[in-house]
Amino acid sequence: MSATRVHNLAVSLDGFATGEGQSLESPFGHAGMRLMGWFFPTATFQSMDGDRERLEVDPATAPDDAFASRWGDRIGAEIMGANKFGPPGWQDDPDWRGWWGEEPPFHTPVFVLTHRPRGRLEMDGGTTFDFLDASPAEALGVAREAANGLDVRIGGGPTVVRDYLAAGLVDHLHVAVVPILLGRGVRLWDGLEGLETAYDVASVTTPSGVTHLTFDRRVP
Amino acid sequence: MSATRVHNLAVSLDGFATGEGQSLESPFGHAGMRLMGWFFPTATFQSMDGDRERLEVDPATAPDDAFASRWGDRIGAEIMGANKFGPPGWQDDPDWRGWWGEEPPFHTPVFVLTHRPRGRLEMDGGTTFDFLDASPAEALGVAREAANGLDVRIGGGPTVVRDYLAAGLVDHLHVAVVPILLGRGVRLWDGLEGLETAYDVASVTTPSGVTHLTFDRRVP
Repeated sequence: MSATRVHNLAVSLDGFATGEGQSLESPFGHAGMRLMGWFFPTATFQSMDGDRERLEVDPATAPDDAFASRWGDRIGAEIMGANKFGPPGWQDDPDWRGWWGEEPPFHTPVFVLTHRPRGRLEMDGGTTFDFLDASPAEALGVAREAANGLDVRIGGGPTVVRDYLAAGLVDHLHVAVVPILLGRGVRLWDGLEGLETAYDVASVTTPSGVTHLTFDRRVP
Repeated sequence: MSATRVHNLAVSLDGFATGEGQSLESPFGHAGMRLMGWFFPTATFQSMDGDRERLEVDPATAPDDAFASRWGDRIGAEIMGANKFGPPGWQDDPDWRGWWGEEPPFHTPVFVLTHRPRGRLEMDGGTTFDFLDASPAEALGVAREAANGLDVRIGGGPTVVRDYLAAGLVDHLHVAVVPILLGRGVRLWDGLEGLETAYDVASVTTPSGVTHLTFDRRVP
């Protein structure tokens, strides 16, 4: 059975998964790169494709990498929100092809939820971007078909993850709680009262100071 | 130097330190006792004074107790908010003497912040309740005097702790993050953007599933 999974979603202690004021220069708004500081020095991130400067892998991040590395296993498609695909207004730029350069790290079909869909983009390395104006459940149906028996990753941002959680469509959720207070931005947890009752919840703090939480849906 | 400390403040994953609908029957509102489930079976709680049923101490709570037990060390006074002292409307009941029976577990002067102060209550075991209509800084001055060189505990609820944090008056903060989503209630972290920059922050998850966070103010 094809599962729906969320990985490596970082939130601040006060529950914000992205800051305020997202733009081309600041994909996470005023949060900057602080939510992802634990992730960048992991072997998983450093071995991902993408046009960017490379960092040294920090061996002390091995416990974080144990979580980070699971993002791609048995994933056959991703669903992402419009706010993950580009900065506000990317829909007005016909040349926008995502943040990730010509060879994005996904290597699967990716479905971008937007009220202003456009034609498919075929990228190098097996990533395709399809644009859907669809409900969470509809998009999941399409992505599952494309995943061909493998799992579907809900890639974010937080609004899309929250929508899928609220709709009861997520089987596995991995959240990394970063001990900073952003004060403003987009909250992950709003409107999800009692979510934990449908899941087995576990957590561990790693030497980086991040607390990794996993929610695994209980089999009824 | 007398420090200002917060201990055993439990918050849900979505940041609520108490639920909605607090009353005499439900001191934490719809949260019930879920935020304090980790605390009740600790040796610290079970050895506190107070009129209530006793539970067995669960030896698996030893790691939680390592945190819980620190609440009383070198404490010479407590400051609490009106919402901790009693249910909404206690100010209209001249006979209300707090939740804790005739021998409250504090054994120090306690200062209750309220816009409707009343006369001092002298309880058994050395606890006194004084009622102050004062700013956080003013109340801290009074409590420090009473603490006589020992530390002052900010005993909650969340609104009072947040006020003291926002005013830069807290030296040590211990928060227990409980992996449940309350959805509504009183948030601890609102309006505290960047708080972590003034503190050394550390965290650990215990076998109970609770993540203990400590904030220790950096010496400038």
